[in-house]
Amino acid sequence: MHHVFFWISIFMMYAVKGQGTSDYTQFVNPRIGTSKMGHVYPGATVPFGMVQVSPQTNFIPMFHEDGTYNKATYDYCAGYQYSDTSILGFAHTNFSGTGHSDLGDLLIMPTCGTLDLSKRNEMQDHGHASSFSHTTELAKPGYYQVMLEQHGIKAEMTATERVGFHRYHFPTSDDANLLLDLVYNVYHHKDKNVWTFLRIENDSTITGYRQTNGWARDRKVFFTIHFSQPIVHYGYQRYDKNHYKGFYRRFNEARDFPEMAGKELRVWFKFKTQANKPLMVKVALSSVSTEGARLNLSTELPHWRFDEVVEEARLRWNAELEKIKVETMDSSDKVSFYTALYHTNLSPILYEDVDGKYRGLDQNIHVSDGFTNYTTFSLWDTYRALHPLFNLVQQERNNDMIKSMLAHQSQSVHRMLPIWSHYANENWCMIGYHAASVLADAVVKKVGDFDREKALLACTSTANVPYFEGIGPYLRYRYVPDDMSHSSVSKTLEYAYDDWCIAQIAQHVGKDSLRQQFSERSTYYRNVYDGTSGFMRPKMSSGKFRTDFDPMDTHGQGFIEGNAWNYGLYVPHDIPDMVHMMGGKKRMTEHLDSLFTMEIADKYIEKNEDITRDGILGNYVHGNEPSHHIPYLFNWTGRPDKTQKTVRIILNEMYSPEIDGLCGNDDAGQMSAWYVFSALGFYPVTPGSTTYALGSPIVVRAELPLPNHKTLVISTKNQSPANVYVKEVRWNGKVLKTPFVDHNELVQGGTLEFLMNDKPNHY
Amino acid sequence: MHHVFFWISIFMMYAVKGQGTSDYTQFVNPRIGTSKMGHVYPGATVPFGMVQVSPQTNFIPMFHEDGTYNKATYDYCAGYQYSDTSILGFAHTNFSGTGHSDLGDLLIMPTCGTLDLSKRNEMQDHGHASSFSHTTELAKPGYYQVMLEQHGIKAEMTATERVGFHRYHFPTSDDANLLLDLVYNVYHHKDKNVWTFLRIENDSTITGYRQTNGWARDRKVFFTIHFSQPIVHYGYQRYDKNHYKGFYRRFNEARDFPEMAGKELRVWFKFKTQANKPLMVKVALSSVSTEGARLNLSTELPHWRFDEVVEEARLRWNAELEKIKVETMDSSDKVSFYTALYHTNLSPILYEDVDGKYRGLDQNIHVSDGFTNYTTFSLWDTYRALHPLFNLVQQERNNDMIKSMLAHQSQSVHRMLPIWSHYANENWCMIGYHAASVLADAVVKKVGDFDREKALLACTSTANVPYFEGIGPYLRYRYVPDDMSHSSVSKTLEYAYDDWCIAQIAQHVGKDSLRQQFSERSTYYRNVYDGTSGFMRPKMSSGKFRTDFDPMDTHGQGFIEGNAWNYGLYVPHDIPDMVHMMGGKKRMTEHLDSLFTMEIADKYIEKNEDITRDGILGNYVHGNEPSHHIPYLFNWTGRPDKTQKTVRIILNEMYSPEIDGLCGNDDAGQMSAWYVFSALGFYPVTPGSTTYALGSPIVVRAELPLPNHKTLVISTKNQSPANVYVKEVRWNGKVLKTPFVDHNELVQGGTLEFLMNDKPNHY
Repeated sequence: MHHVFFWISIFMMYAVKGQGTSDYTQFVNPRIGTSKMGHVYPGATVPFGMVQVSPQTNFIPMFHEDGTYNKATYDYCAGYQYSDTSILGFAHTNFSGTGHSDLGDLLIMPTCGTLDLSKRNEMQDHGHASSFSHTTELAKPGYYQVMLEQHGIKAEMTATERVGFHRYHFPTSDDANLLLDLVYNVYHHKDKNVWTFLRIENDSTITGYRQTNGWARDRKVFFTIHFSQPIVHYGYQRYDKNHYKGFYRRFNEARDFPEMAGKELRVWFKFKTQANKPLMVKVALSSVSTEGARLNLSTELPHWRFDEVVEEARLRWNAELEKIKVETMDSSDKVSFYTALYHTNLSPILYEDVDGKYRGLDQNIHVSDGFTNYTTFSLWDTYRALHPLFNLVQQERNNDMIKSMLAHQSQSVHRMLPIWSHYANENWCMIGYHAASVLADAVVKKVGDFDREKALLACTSTANVPYFEGIGPYLRYRYVPDDMSHSSVSKTLEYAYDDWCIAQIAQHVGKDSLRQQFSERSTYYRNVYDGTSGFMRPKMSSGKFRTDFDPMDTHGQGFIEGNAWNYGLYVPHDIPDMVHMMGGKKRMTEHLDSLFTMEIADKYIEKNEDITRDGILGNYVHGNEPSHHIPYLFNWTGRPDKTQKTVRIILNEMYSPEIDGLCGNDDAGQMSAWYVFSALGFYPVTPGSTTYALGSPIVVRAELPLPNHKTLVISTKNQSPANVYVKEVRWNGKVLKTPFVDHNELVQGGTLEFLMNDKPNHY
Repeated sequence: MHHVFFWISIFMMYAVKGQGTSDYTQFVNPRIGTSKMGHVYPGATVPFGMVQVSPQTNFIPMFHEDGTYNKATYDYCAGYQYSDTSILGFAHTNFSGTGHSDLGDLLIMPTCGTLDLSKRNEMQDHGHASSFSHTTELAKPGYYQVMLEQHGIKAEMTATERVGFHRYHFPTSDDANLLLDLVYNVYHHKDKNVWTFLRIENDSTITGYRQTNGWARDRKVFFTIHFSQPIVHYGYQRYDKNHYKGFYRRFNEARDFPEMAGKELRVWFKFKTQANKPLMVKVALSSVSTEGARLNLSTELPHWRFDEVVEEARLRWNAELEKIKVETMDSSDKVSFYTALYHTNLSPILYEDVDGKYRGLDQNIHVSDGFTNYTTFSLWDTYRALHPLFNLVQQERNNDMIKSMLAHQSQSVHRMLPIWSHYANENWCMIGYHAASVLADAVVKKVGDFDREKALLACTSTANVPYFEGIGPYLRYRYVPDDMSHSSVSKTLEYAYDDWCIAQIAQHVGKDSLRQQFSERSTYYRNVYDGTSGFMRPKMSSGKFRTDFDPMDTHGQGFIEGNAWNYGLYVPHDIPDMVHMMGGKKRMTEHLDSLFTMEIADKYIEKNEDITRDGILGNYVHGNEPSHHIPYLFNWTGRPDKTQKTVRIILNEMYSPEIDGLCGNDDAGQMSAWYVFSALGFYPVTPGSTTYALGSPIVVRAELPLPNHKTLVISTKNQSPANVYVKEVRWNGKVLKTPFVDHNELVQGGTLEFLMNDKPNHY
């Protein structure tokens, strides 16, 4: 029932403010996807902002003796689960939708009365935590509000790009606290903290840093914090033994001593508060230094006008959201659409100070010369649709992101482009070297001014690192032998695709021998196809296919986050060849039909921590990326109608404007980017080519202002929930003969018109 | 016997090179003081250099269960003890003569054959350590050589300011190793390492950093290492569990994987070596970044000409040593003198990169604008004679050191000048705020161009921090009450003296109210004088002297590193008043006579870790600084002859050109500075005044070139071992009426002539 209250309150607020339909932030609900496996956070940030200030709910990591963790830990990649009933505080860094955890820096919690900080372990009761109710929560782009019931404190937060801004309405009290919890972390291992350092610079300014060894193993977050009122007293509770080790222990470090350092500190600040005068806190981050954070703070947020910052954040969000103006069949689709679009603007994030300085992969301080630096590249996910979406609506940022990746490569001791990188670290998550795809997609789509030759060299360097993930054997055997590297089939398929992307760049740059070399490598997918079983199948270095093979199993069968049935369809760069190899269009249609309708036994689901029954359609797993292109494959088997129907099912069933509206990890925006593209009626099945596969739009109409002052219009005729089929598509009035459309034509501006009806058609 | 071989070999070498008496480095033996409590190191460095590359001998810290350590650990403040028989490797940072331990970074050890790195604990046998013999050691300014017998490797090292340069003569081998031991530390606590990070940039370049929590609790050393030959293979042994924590453990990180991070790493590099081609290693340090270290390396040492660097180091040393050209009665005095002078040039050390960047106390990166930054300020020791010596022969450096202290103060969250600071950290060792003395001494001696008003403000800010070491009570009670702060009498005496220094600066700057205020504070020593017992004595906040009081005990009696008998004589800024207060000249002479002749019971010695029977004369403890001015006090009691005799005894008995030639910690050069001054015939009893107290020179003649192209000559007549008394002193021919001489007159140039004889005189 509280959903209703939420919408009433948000609509009322907008009504009061007099914002009309040109305010697209009203259609965003940041709480969508915050339950179950969505892994998004409800807190406040600006588009691609460096700070994400968001509530952390009662995360109870159950560590086993050996340091491993129970499944529940995985639920808290973004620090928040909707089903929880208490808040630990508000952290300043959060991933959006990732399938792995880190961050959660600088937890701030306001409390009243005596603080009991004696217990370190998060498994214990948190004396400082507070119960909360979702009825008091208000989450909108750039703003979050909640009532902390335990303490009678209304908490509000907003953000600029590099500064989190809090406003706490305390009761009148001589015993009000702000807790800065530097022990708290989002991660699934104990002992993540490496070091913390903190200085009370004056009665209202704190500086410091924390270094962690988490998913990123050498990560430093520097900060400067300002309070709107003077601190009366302060102190800390430490949980390690790193006191000053000089001859004598001279000071009472635990109280009113302005310098703190150690591994595990919780710091408290005592204030006198008045009910009519909220206590405000500004927290600026930097990857460089406390001086960098200070500069970010003084540049971005030199004042205390909270409401003004909320409004600025809204305007920033609106400026991004209005890049795609849609009309929908009903308001819930609009919420789904704009919430998805919102999710696609949460990462990669800005990662530099206002003066352009940032920490590089080599841990040196660099200056972004001629670009803006970004981090958090979940590339195995985001190369598929998120970066292609950026090539449509965030060209400038994507150019900067690519330059950031090239800078990463030049700083990499491996001379590799990012695989999965965040905060000046490579975490090596997942497989492939899909930065190549992002670069190729931008090259063929003529996006950005990054150096194409440098991009090619960065790709070829990356693709030839012999010790990386079976690359050596891949080059020697022309496939990744299953006895030499895990996930051998997935790797072979993805390397082949990435190599094709590199060939596209080589062609563009005019390096023919490289083009030939990588085109040749791009055919290696054929080497893991087993004609006998009809599946891509793990092959040994002996040249024989592995004998124990279960094409339904996602574990230990040569695939990762997928099985031979679905992941085995991954040859995006030569789908006709794949269709031919696998027995032709009819057989492929049957394979796909089976895929979408077959039953998966529970045993295959249970093993998987990040898919739920909600996210699957037969053996199609929308919650995991290797399937994302599959609904569109019917376009290549002569049955685009099946694509249209399937896409509409997925749009309707696997996304909803509800708290549990995401059927799997949003994966740094990839799931949402799939929604945005598919809702508009097309999808980039093959990033690195300019071709979009057409599907079935769910919008009634969309307008995309283009950088060249032209507009791309997507319009539909006879759009309705029942009319999921496309009878005809016209581009600027001309009927399309195939279910494909070219990006470089679309961005010249014009109208893509879908004629919808309720029966399958062949066009 | 091996002393003889050493001197034969060093003299032969110089003979071959044809260096004459203008080479003063020939009189320096860096091994003097490396046994027992001298705490100096024999390795290679340049004057005030940032790198000290020196052998680390078989340090066996015996840790107790509670993390405390046994006394033996204290012996290894400089990593080396002459009595040891094996070498663990060569570290790049070492304190000289300190009474507390830290540093010992980047231990490099060459070995041949299989390396067994399985044992982490230094208590275990070190498979990679090597036995050595002192007969193969050669230590001279800027150069160290030793034969590593276990492995048949001749090791040589030299240094530039920021780069350690190694040359290893291996046998021909396919199995030669260089071990980079990042676990090794000099410190008396376990668990000092916070983090290490390392990259193999290419086949002959390594970069990285180590962060430690030792005496300095937040200390970072960045480095870049070059090898003269390509690495064949490399890898590490780790003793912690900080492996890459991504989803999968993808790599064999332990071998040929170019990126390493964790808490405790030993890294090995395999080389092919030839007997006729030494393997060379250059290790550049930086406090800023690996990029800073790279810049230091490429700027300071772009080549591999080892012998040239050895010669450059020698020339640098000679340039410093020839600032005091002495003739002595015998060659052993000359060795004592120049070795002492050498020791006074080992710290403070340079602490900035070639581009002026350095890490500040706030952990931010600063640029030394208008000065050169220094660190390692053991001020409780060095304000006494070392900085005054700098005001005579290192004026430019002392100016830079003072500017470094002022920068420290501006970066301090406490707004305090350094107490005992090193490597961007304050370790709070010992008492007082003696930076004030260093500043005042330079002000009255007209040294440097540092901002005098800023200096005054820095002093008054420091002297008023209420939570520092009893300052609050000191201001309230006009002494430090013994029930409120430890070492209460020592603190009261030293604060009073420091306050007098501040008053001198205030007078110079013309701030009369501050001058008055601090002059008033400078009299507080009177408040701890107990006329009944005739001693300075701990006083309680009640206003009553403490009842249990043992003027011989150095522990828990209101003093630190001293007792009421000796430390109680510490009123350097108003000695006449002290003499008067304590009963007049005659009584003081008797007190002093008693002091130098009384027996100290063993129980008082045994409790003290850093004094030995060698360093005491009655109850006078030369090994600890609070006594250093005492021999000169007879000048104020009308018995300068007793000063003369006593000083000569100390010069002869407590310093010797032997391995055990220091009777206590050299204390960052203070002990040696005492020698240099006293050997020249005068001593700065009251830094902050321009007065030197005259003693009895041990030199025959000395020449000090002055910055103004004039020369200060010290000459003696009838100088002999028996003629310890001074009959007459003339300054530029004019007979002095008192046993004092003024610094500001001396630096105008001229001749100070001592007429020596063998009987006490009154002049």
